[in-house]
Formats: sequence, structure tokens, C-alpha cells
Amino acid sequence: MKARIGVGLVGFGTVGIGVAKILLGNRALIQRRVGVPVELVRVVDLDITRDRGVSLPPGMLTTDVGQILDDPSIDIVLELIGGYDAAKRVILDAMARGKQVVTANKALLAVHGEEIFEAAARRRVDLGFEASVGGGIPVIRALTEGLAANTILSIYGIINGTSNYILSRMTSEGQGFKEVLAEAQRAGYAEADPTFDVAGVDSAHKLSIMVSLAYGTPVNFKEVYTEGITRLTPLDITYAKEFGYTIKLLGIAKFSDGEVEARVHPTMIPSTSPVAHVEGIYNAIQLAGDAVGDIVLYGQGAGSMPTGSAVVSDVIAIARNLLTGATGRVPPASFQQDQRRPLRIRQMEEIVSLYYLRFMVLDRPGVLSQISGVLGRHGISISSVLQQGRKEGQTVPVVIMTHTSTERDVQASLREIDRMPFISEPTTLIRVEGHDE
Amino acid sequence: MKARIGVGLVGFGTVGIGVAKILLGNRALIQRRVGVPVELVRVVDLDITRDRGVSLPPGMLTTDVGQILDDPSIDIVLELIGGYDAAKRVILDAMARGKQVVTANKALLAVHGEEIFEAAARRRVDLGFEASVGGGIPVIRALTEGLAANTILSIYGIINGTSNYILSRMTSEGQGFKEVLAEAQRAGYAEADPTFDVAGVDSAHKLSIMVSLAYGTPVNFKEVYTEGITRLTPLDITYAKEFGYTIKLLGIAKFSDGEVEARVHPTMIPSTSPVAHVEGIYNAIQLAGDAVGDIVLYGQGAGSMPTGSAVVSDVIAIARNLLTGATGRVPPASFQQDQRRPLRIRQMEEIVSLYYLRFMVLDRPGVLSQISGVLGRHGISISSVLQQGRKEGQTVPVVIMTHTSTERDVQASLREIDRMPFISEPTTLIRVEGHDE
Repeated sequence: MKARIGVGLVGFGTVGIGVAKILLGNRALIQRRVGVPVELVRVVDLDITRDRGVSLPPGMLTTDVGQILDDPSIDIVLELIGGYDAAKRVILDAMARGKQVVTANKALLAVHGEEIFEAAARRRVDLGFEASVGGGIPVIRALTEGLAANTILSIYGIINGTSNYILSRMTSEGQGFKEVLAEAQRAGYAEADPTFDVAGVDSAHKLSIMVSLAYGTPVNFKEVYTEGITRLTPLDITYAKEFGYTIKLLGIAKFSDGEVEARVHPTMIPSTSPVAHVEGIYNAIQLAGDAVGDIVLYGQGAGSMPTGSAVVSDVIAIARNLLTGATGRVPPASFQQDQRRPLRIRQMEEIVSLYYLRFMVLDRPGVLSQISGVLGRHGISISSVLQQGRKEGQTVPVVIMTHTSTERDVQASLREIDRMPFISEPTTLIRVEGHDE
Repeated sequence: MKARIGVGLVGFGTVGIGVAKILLGNRALIQRRVGVPVELVRVVDLDITRDRGVSLPPGMLTTDVGQILDDPSIDIVLELIGGYDAAKRVILDAMARGKQVVTANKALLAVHGEEIFEAAARRRVDLGFEASVGGGIPVIRALTEGLAANTILSIYGIINGTSNYILSRMTSEGQGFKEVLAEAQRAGYAEADPTFDVAGVDSAHKLSIMVSLAYGTPVNFKEVYTEGITRLTPLDITYAKEFGYTIKLLGIAKFSDGEVEARVHPTMIPSTSPVAHVEGIYNAIQLAGDAVGDIVLYGQGAGSMPTGSAVVSDVIAIARNLLTGATGRVPPASFQQDQRRPLRIRQMEEIVSLYYLRFMVLDRPGVLSQISGVLGRHGISISSVLQQGRKEGQTVPVVIMTHTSTERDVQASLREIDRMPFISEPTTLIRVEGHDE
């Protein structure tokens, strides 16, 4: 039995700092759980001078990743540098040396996950990535272990804190996207370049990982439909409220007939839904299993210490495996590697949903009948219409909520309607999750 | 490597039926995750004739527990009979034969947990009990693995579905406890004898288990202060709403200064709190960790399939351990057995809290000043007073919310006040969790 577990940390940024603080600060607690000391042996970063508010023993911090990869006393390598090429190299090099790996890198796993899972399974090393989705929320463990007995029927995730912060502020204060984004950037809740967050790409990365774990299918980021929050307006948020809905940027997966839907887009959900109340930078993931029913996991989806908590939970799990000679006991993607099967991801136009459509029309008689005529010809039936305040000759919103329809029919209708002369701007479409009544 | 994992089920009641359905129905899925078949080999119950809606192969169901204990092809024994003596015997006998054990029996673990944990650690067998708290919610795994890097600062749990159902109905419909209980019994949400549920005992069992896992301290059910919901009135629920609070039966644990509080009682929590929205039979557990911050886990806290999901998640985890020779990799109480230390559980009179006090007084001049005088002499300061509608000479409620006070001072005040001639019934005290302002 090993007398200690050695940890090497690559990437001493926001998450790395949290990890170091936890490993050093909760050292005694971790030892009481694991049985032997879990020691931070070395930290690698390009910048070894910046004061990060953590005091490491002299000589621990270096720029040379070889001092981790080639050190036999290091059992677990933490890849916390982010990005693609360098991160992948660290992970694969560490695995090639028989080391266990923990990463928080969702972009890397979403894009190169198969290669990394394959390497981990082949070498029978552990790959921990609890920190890649939902920060400190133990959602990867829920998918790979806690709900492992279930066929996962659906996933609804608020999995990007920046977008949720912006949407929450837009909802509570009625401000526009750009104003709130600027404010979020000043407050440190949004990056200088927020594209990955607000365009839904980060959510799509995380959804891809969850879909892979839930269904035993290879990660397929490119096939996830991705739409962000940049075009949402306070007007739509207000209408949503009137219909009893809250707008959230959701990652959605649904399983039926041997196929899966995987999509990220702004979604109206009933304001009574447990995830509708999730405000600010918090994340929440609602999982439905065939046995367990609905489960919601809620917490801080980012940040130094919450994400660090997830990284160290993986370190502890792997330490427990190392001490019992059981690395690889849970295969990296939860399913046995030879039991993973490509599932068809449904094309977006095949999905069915309820739809919120906001038409901006020149207010004159007959407009509603022309719009509803087109919808009707495409087999779309209307559940309600909202047309407030008539202003003949001016542009006014007409809002239509549909019954269950297919995306293909809705898009075809909008292409037709948006060419009509009384339409003053492209129609806004927001998908609605809820029960058709 | 074993070619299959054999499972023996003792107790074919509500949970046992769910477990059998999942093991049989999701057999292929479970095999894809584990790598080998996980087979239900034998089911034991006193009643082998009742139709339970699950078709077992002929001969699988027997009344003889020896057919499980003495069968070398059975690796994992599921104790789902409930109660104390017989259940404990099955668990210890199974462990003595080197078998792994899964149980859903919170009462047994709360009362005899130490003996069972000790036996599991000594024989280095696995003991799974995810199903003992929160039904299908993976909260045991969160405490033992997902948040293992954290010092747990607090636990707030809605962990009894029957009580939460009754409170939710009382809150939404303004009915009294007895009416709603009778209705819950008719609807199957409350047992014929609901004492364990409504008196808080079941919540105290579950809280004891969580405290033990969070703090590495022996289970200490007897020291958990326990108060149920039987004396709550619609009047207090209405007042709570006016102050912005919702009343929930909570299991609360808090850690500070090397000691822990552990108590179950009706509690006013801010209506904006994430657990305030938890309605009906749902459970939710809010865990605060020093690194992760607040996490909430939400789901169905009882029922055949949700609880079955938790049992089978343990079966899968143990199967993965068996296949890698790693049983005992996570010690039963998450902390190494020799690293568990008795923590002092604070006496109830030592706790500090905010308090809601409803006095029923004969309405006459000077009453409020006498009450506030007593409180003041005990060092209790008042944050607000509600006294609606004066009816001189009649009995009226006077509601006082206090600033942070100690239980000892509040109880001493009430003993004094309740002897005063203008007090017409014992004063109602409800503890309030929130920020002192």
C-alpha cells in the first residue's frame, strides 16, 4: 500500500489556485478520508512570479512540465491550463507514463473527448472531469454513478453562469442584453470576449459531455444545435412572464426511439419549474431517469473554489482507487469502452416543441388572418394569441403560442411569413418546454 | 475477473419490488456499464404468494434467507426488510460470510450504525446505503465522494416527504394539520401510523446518518433534538408568509468551533431560499461546503422506483469494486474507521437562532410591554412585532420576531411569560433561519 499520493498541478490560474488552497488547507480532512497524505508535489505555470495569494513551499512552482511528467512520485496530474493543443499533450503524455489524470477542460473533452477516453481506457488509468460541467456540482458523478441504474430520459441544464447572470438581470430589471453584458463584464461575471458563453458554445461543450455519459455514445459536439442569448429582448422576457414562463439558456437532451436530441437555446420554461428559480451565476441540472424520476442538482457552476472542490473530489476518488489497485474501476465514459455505441443525434428540423413566435407587423386589418393562414397550411395549430394595443399604421408585436409542432414546419412557415409586406423585422422564435394543453 | 455479479434480495416490499424491476428491466444497460451481467439470483420474503406485478423466474422467490446467505454465487445482499433486529441479523450474517451489503434502512443505521460500520470495516466489505436518505437523490454519494474535499459547514434537509406533503397542503390551502393528515392517508402519502414521519423521528434518523458522514463522527441519533409538525397551525403559516418566510420541517446541522448542532424542527426559511420552493413529497438537501459553497440536491425522497434507483446505484458501485478487487475502497462512513472521532453535539439550549414567538393574549393595555420586558431582561432583542386588530377583552395573537438569541434565554423567557395571567395558551415558538438584520 502506498504511503502517500503525489499530485502535480499544471496551470496555476483561477481553478489551479482553488485546487492548491483546498489541497493545502483541507489536507488533514482529506487524509482522514483517504487514509494516507495527498500531497501537492509540484505546480507548473508559465508565470512563476505573480502573487496568487497562496503560499507554496519554495521550489514547488516551476515552468517545466517535465518535472511533473517525469517525477515517479507524482501519481495524479491535474490539467488546468485550458485550451486544446497543450492541454491535450499534457493529458496524453501523463497517461503514457501511467499517471492518472484530472481535468476541468470541457472544451477539450467536447472536441477531443474520444481520443482522450480511448487513451484512458487503453492504459486503464483514471480520468476525472467532475469539474468540466457545473463547477462544484457533482453532476458527472450523478451521471456515471448515482443514477447509473437509470435510462436517462432527459437533461435540462442551466450550465453557463455568465448567460444565466445576464438573463437573470434582464428579467429582474428589464434591461437589454448589451447593457447587462457591459455591467457583467465590469463586475467580473463575463469575460472580455464573452462569445463562448453568450453564444451557447460553452453550454454545448458541457451538454456534449453529459450526453456522452448518459447514453454511452461518443461525444458529438458538432451535432449539437447551438443558439445563444444575444438576440433576446426585454420585450420577449415580459411576454414570457405573461404566459407564466421564464426564459433560460438551456442545454437540452431527450432520448426516445433509440435517438437523442441535443440542443442549446434560449427556452421558455414554466415559472413553477424547479430550474426557473435558478438565478445569477448559479447552475442547475435537471435529470429525468426512468426509475428515479426528476432530480435537480444546483450550485455554483464556476469560480476558483467551487471548481477546485470538484477537481479535488476527483483526486480523492482516484487516490482511493490507487490505494486499492482499482484504477479504471469506472470507465472514463461510465459505459465500458467496448459498449459505447453511436446514437443518432436528431437533426434540429426533426424536433417537436411548443413555440413562442413574436411577429412585428404593420398594424392593419387582415394581418393576423394571413399569419394564421400560413401556420395552418403547415399544420401548426395556435394555442393563444396576444395582440396588445392597436395602433393602426404602426409597427406592433403580435405574439402567437403554438401547440406541439415540428421545427421543420415552423421554420418553413416563418420563411414564408417573413417575406410578407406587413412584416417589419425577422420574426423572433423561442422554443417552449412545457405541457401542451 | 468474475464473469457475473450475483445479487440476493431480502424483503420483497415496496423498495424490493422497485429494485427487482430495475435489475430485470435495465439489465442490458447495467451490463454495459459494469462489464458483466448483474443477476438477481434469489428473493426472500415471508409472503411468497402475493402478486406484486413483477414476474420472477420460477423458484427465485423463497422464504428461506439461508438460500441467500449460504449461496456462494451471491456476492451482494440487499437488506430491504426494514426494522431493527431481523434486518441487523441479515446484514451482519451476510458480512460474516464475506458478502457485500446494501440497505435502505435509515432507522437501523441511525440506531445501530456504529456496530454495522465497524463490522463492514473489519471485514473490509462494502456497505451501500444511498437509499437511506433522500430516496433516489444521490446525497450519500455527495457527502462521501462528491464533496469529500470540503469541510461541511451546514446541512439543511427536507428529508421526509410525508411531512413536506402535509406542510405544503397546509400552506397552499390553509387547512389544519389533522384534516390534511387524514387526506394524505387516504391518498397514500401517509402511513396509517404516521408518528415517525410527522413527529420528526424519520428526519432525525436521516440527519444522524448525514452528520456522521459529513463530520467523521459516530452516529448519534439520541442526541438529535427532534420536534415534529403536529402542533403547527394555519395561523403560523399565514404569519410566516407575511414576514417573507415559508415553514418547512428541516433537519439542520451546523459545524463551528469543533462542535456540531444537529436538530429537526419546523423552521421558517426565507421564501426566496432554494429549498422553500420544494413542494409535496419531494425532498431537498442543501449542503454548504467551505470550498464548494451551497449545493442543493432535489428529487423524490421515497417510493418504489426512486428508492430502488438508489439501491441499484450501490449495487453497480459495489459490482465495480468487486471486479477490480477494491471492496472497501470507500470506508463505510467515508472517513477511515480509525479516523472517526466523537464530535460534541451541542445541547439544544446552547444554540443561537432567530425566533418567531406567537403569544395568545387577553387584549388589554400593557400586555406588550410586560412581554417585551421579560424578553429584554433575558437579553432578547425584538426585530418586529405584529399585532393585528384590537379586540379589547378578547384573546388575540401577538407575534414577535427576535434578533439572534440563545435557545436557553428564549425558553427561560417563555416559562416566565406563560405563567402570566393574560396568557391564554402556551406560546408557539418557531425557529427562523435567515440573516439577522
